[in-house]
Amino acid sequence: MSFNTFGRLFRFTTWGESHGPALGCTIDGVPPLLDLAEGDIQGFLDKRKPGQSKYTTQRREPDLVKIMSGVFEGKTTGTPIQLMIENTDQRSKDYGNIAQSFRPGHADYTYIAKYGIRDYRGGGRSSARETAARVAAGAVARKVLGGGITIRAAMVQMGRHAIDRSRFDWNEVNNNPFFCPDAVTAGMWADELDAIRKNGSSIGAVIEVVAEGVPAGWGAPVYGKLDADLATAMMSINAVKAVEIGAGMEAACLTGEENADEMLPGKDGKPEFQSNKAGGILGGISTGQPVVVRFAVKPTSSILTPRKSVNEHGEAVEVVTKGRHDPCVGIRAVPVAEAMMAVVLADHMMLHRAQCG
Amino acid sequence: MSFNTFGRLFRFTTWGESHGPALGCTIDGVPPLLDLAEGDIQGFLDKRKPGQSKYTTQRREPDLVKIMSGVFEGKTTGTPIQLMIENTDQRSKDYGNIAQSFRPGHADYTYIAKYGIRDYRGGGRSSARETAARVAAGAVARKVLGGGITIRAAMVQMGRHAIDRSRFDWNEVNNNPFFCPDAVTAGMWADELDAIRKNGSSIGAVIEVVAEGVPAGWGAPVYGKLDADLATAMMSINAVKAVEIGAGMEAACLTGEENADEMLPGKDGKPEFQSNKAGGILGGISTGQPVVVRFAVKPTSSILTPRKSVNEHGEAVEVVTKGRHDPCVGIRAVPVAEAMMAVVLADHMMLHRAQCG
Amino acid sequence: MSFNTFGRLFRFTTWGESHGPALGCTIDGVPPLLDLAEGDIQGFLDKRKPGQSKYTTQRREPDLVKIMSGVFEGKTTGTPIQLMIENTDQRSKDYGNIAQSFRPGHADYTYIAKYGIRDYRGGGRSSARETAARVAAGAVARKVLGGGITIRAAMVQMGRHAIDRSRFDWNEVNNNPFFCPDAVTAGMWADELDAIRKNGSSIGAVIEVVAEGVPAGWGAPVYGKLDADLATAMMSINAVKAVEIGAGMEAACLTGEENADEMLPGKDGKPEFQSNKAGGILGGISTGQPVVVRFAVKPTSSILTPRKSVNEHGEAVEVVTKGRHDPCVGIRAVPVAEAMMAVVLADHMMLHRAQCG
Amino acid sequence: MSFNTFGRLFRFTTWGESHGPALGCTIDGVPPLLDLAEGDIQGFLDKRKPGQSKYTTQRREPDLVKIMSGVFEGKTTGTPIQLMIENTDQRSKDYGNIAQSFRPGHADYTYIAKYGIRDYRGGGRSSARETAARVAAGAVARKVLGGGITIRAAMVQMGRHAIDRSRFDWNEVNNNPFFCPDAVTAGMWADELDAIRKNGSSIGAVIEVVAEGVPAGWGAPVYGKLDADLATAMMSINAVKAVEIGAGMEAACLTGEENADEMLPGKDGKPEFQSNKAGGILGGISTGQPVVVRFAVKPTSSILTPRKSVNEHGEAVEVVTKGRHDPCVGIRAVPVAEAMMAVVLADHMMLHRAQCG
Repeated sequence: MSFNTFGRLFRFTTWGESHGPALGCTIDGVPPLLDLAEGDIQGFLDKRKPGQSKYTTQRREPDLVKIMSGVFEGKTTGTPIQLMIENTDQRSKDYGNIAQSFRPGHADYTYIAKYGIRDYRGGGRSSARETAARVAAGAVARKVLGGGITIRAAMVQMGRHAIDRSRFDWNEVNNNPFFCPDAVTAGMWADELDAIRKNGSSIGAVIEVVAEGVPAGWGAPVYGKLDADLATAMMSINAVKAVEIGAGMEAACLTGEENADEMLPGKDGKPEFQSNKAGGILGGISTGQPVVVRFAVKPTSSILTPRKSVNEHGEAVEVVTKGRHDPCVGIRAVPVAEAMMAVVLADHMMLHRAQCG
Repeated sequence: MSFNTFGRLFRFTTWGESHGPALGCTIDGVPPLLDLAEGDIQGFLDKRKPGQSKYTTQRREPDLVKIMSGVFEGKTTGTPIQLMIENTDQRSKDYGNIAQSFRPGHADYTYIAKYGIRDYRGGGRSSARETAARVAAGAVARKVLGGGITIRAAMVQMGRHAIDRSRFDWNEVNNNPFFCPDAVTAGMWADELDAIRKNGSSIGAVIEVVAEGVPAGWGAPVYGKLDADLATAMMSINAVKAVEIGAGMEAACLTGEENADEMLPGKDGKPEFQSNKAGGILGGISTGQPVVVRFAVKPTSSILTPRKSVNEHGEAVEVVTKGRHDPCVGIRAVPVAEAMMAVVLADHMMLHRAQCG
Repeated sequence: MSFNTFGRLFRFTTWGESHGPALGCTIDGVPPLLDLAEGDIQGFLDKRKPGQSKYTTQRREPDLVKIMSGVFEGKTTGTPIQLMIENTDQRSKDYGNIAQSFRPGHADYTYIAKYGIRDYRGGGRSSARETAARVAAGAVARKVLGGGITIRAAMVQMGRHAIDRSRFDWNEVNNNPFFCPDAVTAGMWADELDAIRKNGSSIGAVIEVVAEGVPAGWGAPVYGKLDADLATAMMSINAVKAVEIGAGMEAACLTGEENADEMLPGKDGKPEFQSNKAGGILGGISTGQPVVVRFAVKPTSSILTPRKSVNEHGEAVEVVTKGRHDPCVGIRAVPVAEAMMAVVLADHMMLHRAQCG
Repeated sequence: MSFNTFGRLFRFTTWGESHGPALGCTIDGVPPLLDLAEGDIQGFLDKRKPGQSKYTTQRREPDLVKIMSGVFEGKTTGTPIQLMIENTDQRSKDYGNIAQSFRPGHADYTYIAKYGIRDYRGGGRSSARETAARVAAGAVARKVLGGGITIRAAMVQMGRHAIDRSRFDWNEVNNNPFFCPDAVTAGMWADELDAIRKNGSSIGAVIEVVAEGVPAGWGAPVYGKLDADLATAMMSINAVKAVEIGAGMEAACLTGEENADEMLPGKDGKPEFQSNKAGGILGGISTGQPVVVRFAVKPTSSILTPRKSVNEHGEAVEVVTKGRHDPCVGIRAVPVAEAMMAVVLADHMMLHRAQCG
C-alpha cells in the first residue's frame, strides 16, 4: 500500500494540501552518518519555488524547509527524517462557484467521485505544491547516492518546438527561466510563452532527465525493473501523460539492426557501448551508460478561456480560471524530475547492496 | 520489495525460467467464491502462445495451465492460487559461445553485472516466457473485475506504419495474426513483416490497450495513481520503452484549450465528457471514460545480421542470433497488455473498496 | 519495508525524537467523510501523557496535537493525515558521561552498534515518547472502526501481584493511577509502587487489552493472521518482552479437552462459544468473541542503583540514572495498547472489506 | 499486503492445501551465487515430516522437495526460487459430517465466516502441512546467513512438565522423538504422551529457539524491531498462543535491578554482557548475545472425546476427530521454529546491509 509513499528501502511519505498550514515528508531508511543540513535541501527547493519569473505562478512562497527529526549534530541517525515546509501565501479568497464546479483537466471531479469530499482550496492534495516535498526528498537521496552520480534535467520541448540537439549544453540550463539547454531555443520560447501567458492560455512540454555515473547492475527483474520504477516515478508527477526510456516511442519505428547498441571492449573489462538506444537500461537493469528518461507534461488546465463543465449538482456551468497559474507547468517539473530520478536511484542502490552485497 | 511480485491487494508473484522445468505464478488476495477453472485461463494463454503463425517464434509450447491450489469444487477459496505451466520445448542444444557472449539489446550483460551469474538458456529469467504467467494472472483478474469491464488491446503501429484510425474496428483484431484493428493495414503489415522475417531482421510496434466500463473513482493520489500503476505495469513488459496515457507525448504539443476535456451534464448526474485527452484518468483517478494506454515495443534484439559485442572475458566478438525468434515481438505483447491492464484494475477495484467502502 | 510504518491499508508512519522540536505521524489510507477534530484525539493523549501522578515521569508535556493535513471542514478527505505534537519540556541539561555510556536495558549500545551514531538526549528515537504518535493514530483508528467495537485495556499484574479476576471491573480502571480494574489490588499497588519509587527502583507489569464487538471473519491466513499482527503490534511497544493471545503461555499446560472452546447454537445462526481459550481468534481469523491480548512489560531500565556497564570507548563505567522516569512504565503502556489494538483492527476491517466485499 | 508472504528482502510466499496436489513456496530476493541443491533442503524437511514416531501423525508423506526455478548449475541466480512438494498421502475418504461441522479449536468456523467457503479436506489451507514450505524456505535462509550463525530449537515443556535447565544439552535434542534437550525429562514425556495418545487426547508444549552468532546491530526501530518480527513469525505458526523474548512473561515480575543485563569490557571493545534477560535484543536491535525466543503451542484440537459444536446450518452437533493426528503438535513445531528464526534473521541481515552498508 503506498498511496502517499514512494520507494522501498529509501522511501518517503508526503503529506499536506495546497492551502493547509504546511506540507512535508517523512523519509525513512536513510543510511546513518550522512552530513545533512537544511541548506543542503533549500537550494533544490529554491529552483522549484514559484514566482521566480513571469513564466511561473505568482504565488509567493519562500518554501523554507525545516528538519524536524532524524538528524543529530549535523548527521543523519538512521531514523526517520521529517521535513516540513510551511505554507505562507495561501491567499484567503472567495472560491465562489469554483468550489462546486469541476474544472476540466483538473482532479476536481475524480476526487468527488472517489471520496465524496474534496479540499477545493487551490486544488488541495492534487496541487503541484506536493512536489515541493518530492524535491526535498530528492535532495536527501542525492546525499545517499554520493558525489559519483550526476543527475540533471532540462526542458527539451515546449509545445511543438523542440530544442536543437546539436546545441544541447547543460551549462545553459540555469541561464534561462525554462531550464532550456539550448540558448537559441530559449529565446524563441520566451516570446512564445509571453504571448501564451498574456492570452491566459497554456502549453505543454517535454522534460529530459539524465543520470550519469550509475554503475551497471542496479535494478531488478521483473517487477523491480529500474525503467518500470522510473516510469511510475515520472508518471506520478502532476500533469505527466507519457514516459520514455532511451529511444522511447521512436523504438517502435526501428529495426533490430538500428536498435542494437553494439559493444566494444572498454576499460576495466567493461563493454563500451557504441550508442544508447536503451537509455542505459537492459532487462530492467542499468548498463553503466547514462540513464535517460523523457516525459510529456500536458498544458496547465487553468486557463482564461471559458470551458464547458458541470458542477456538483450535475448542472451545466462555464469555468474560467483566473487567479495565479503557470502558463507552462513543465518548467517547474524540471527540478521535480531530478528529484524523482534521485529517489529511484537511491532506492535501487540500497536494494542492490541488500541482495548482491 | 516486489522484484517478482506485482500488485497490492490483487497481487501475483511469478517464477520460472525459459528453459527450466516449468514456470508459474502465485496469485494472492483473490476474493472467494468466484467460479474458476483451467478453461477460464487457457483461452488467454492460447492467444499468447508461440508458433501460431509464421510471424511468431516457432518454439512449440502447448502452455497448458494447471491450478495447483486455491480453488475448491470449482470456486476460489480466498487462499493463494498457484498456476503452473510446464515447459515442454526447451530444446536441448549447444549454446556455444552465446553462453559467454553478451547479445546487444538483451539482458545478458546486465544480469552478469548484477548477479555474477546467469541462466543463459533461452534468456533464462529475462525471457518473454515469463509473460505467460502474467497472462494467466490476468485471466483471474478479469474474474475479479466481473462482466461490466471490457479490456481489449490491439497493435496500432508496426515500424513507421500506423493504422488508419477511421478504420479502427475491434472485431478485426482476431481476424489477422497481428491483432490489428484495421484490416487494410493488416494486409500491408503481412507483406512487410514477411520480408523482415526472411531477412532475419525485426521491427518495433505500438500497442494500445483500452478498458471500458471502469467506474469513476478508482486510483488514488499521489503514489497510487492509476496512470502511474499502469505505467509501471506496461514498462515492466519485456522490450517496452515508452508508455502513454490518453494524449500521451502529444500532450506536450497542446494548448490548455485543446487539451481540456469539456463536460456536459450526462446521465445519473454524471458528467458527459466531450473528448478523452486524459485517457480516462485525472489526478490519478478514473473519470468513468475509457482508460486508454499505449506503449512502444522495441524490435526483437535477436537478429541474423552480425552485431559487435564483447564476451564475459571482455573480448570483442560478433553475435548472430540464429534459432527461433519473433520478428515483431510486439504481436505477442497484445494479450500481455490486456492482462496487465486487468491486474492493475482488479487491484484498484479492491483498493477502492477497502478505503471507500 | 516498514521500519517506521505500521499497517497495510490503515497505516501510519511515526517520526520524531524525545528531545527534538516535535514528533508526529502520518496516517495514510483513512476512509473519507469521517468526523475528525483535534478534540477526538486529545483525550487519548491526555490519558498517556506523563506527569499525571507521582507514579509516572515528572516530565511536563501538554502533548497537544495539531492536525496538519487530511481534514477539511471537520471531515477526513481520504488523503494523508499529519498529526504533530510539539515537545516543550525537553529540558536543557548536561548529559555528561551518559552521552557516552551504555545504560543497561536501554537501546544505547545497540543503536551505536547499528548506526554508529545516536541521539542520546532522552533516548532519542528509542524513547517511549514515540508512543504518543501511536496513541494519536489509535484515536483515528477508532473513528474508522466506528461505535460498534469497544477497545479497553487494563494493568492486571504489577511485579508478582496480579489482580483478583473475581473483582475485575472495567469501571474501576479510570479510578486509580494504574488503570487497574480491581480497586483492592490498586490500593496495594499504590503502597508498593511508592516504596519502589522512593528507592529509585522500578518494576514490571502485565497489561491486558480486550476488543469487544469484533465480527467473525477478520484476519487472514497464513501471514496476515490477526493474532500474528497483534503480536508484532504489542511487541513493538517499548519494553514489551512477551505477548499472549487468549490462554497464552498457559495453553502449553492444557489438554485438548480443556482447551476446546465448545459451541452451542446461538443467535442468527452463529455459534455461541462456551469459553474463550482462543482469545477470539482461530486460524488467524476472529471468531466473534472478545479478542483478548496480554503482554509483559519489563521494569524501567532507568534506576538509581549503580549498574556496571561500558562506554563508547569500551571502558568500564558505573551507570546511575537520575532524572525523571516512570517507576512502572507498564502504566503508560495501557493507552498505547488500546491504540495498537485499534490500528490492527482498523487495518483488518479494511483488508476484509477489500477481499470479501 | 502479505497474507501468504513473509519477509521484506528475504521473502517467501507459500501456497497449497493439505489435500491438494502439491504445496510449495516462492522465495524472492535470495542473493546470487549461493550453493543450493535439493539435498540442502531435504534434511530439514525430513526432521519435520510426519510419521517418524508414534508421537506424530501417521500420515505418510515423503515430503520430497523439487527446485523448480532460480538455481542454475548448482548456484542461486538471484531470481525467484520455486520449491514444490507433492502431496502423496491425501487419503481419499468420506469426510461425512465433518465437512459441514465446525471442529472446536480448528479454523473451520472462521474460514466460513470469512470466505463463505472452505476446503474441508484435512483442514485445507489451515493445515499444518503449510509449515513444510516454511521449513524449505528456512533451509535457504540458512544458506544466506552462512556458517557463522547457529540456529537450534528444542521442546522445553510438555503440558506442565518443563525440562530441568541444569540438564539442558543441545546434543540430546536429536536423541529422542521430542527434540527434548534433557534426556531424563524426555523419558518421562514418553510415558506421559503415550498415555495421552492412547486416550485420543492431546497436550500443549513450549518450544525454545536460540540463535547464536548474530552480530550486534541487526533489527530496527520502531516497527521493524527484531523482536516484533520474531513475535509475528512465531505467532503465525499453527496453534501458537504466546511468544516470549528473553525473560518473557517473567519480566513483569522483575525489578529494574534484577532485569538489568550488566556489561563489562569484552573483546574487541565490545561489551561482555553478564546476563541475558533481554534475550539478545534491546530497542529492537540485536546485542550480539544469543537471541532467545520461546512460544507456547496449544494442544492439538483433534481429539477423540466428543465436543459440543454446531454445523454450517447452525445446528447442534457433537464432534469426534478420529483419523490421524499429532497428540502433541508442539513436537513438529521445533523445525518450523528454527526455520522462522532463520528467515527473520536472513531478512534482517539484508536489511542491515542495505541501510548500514
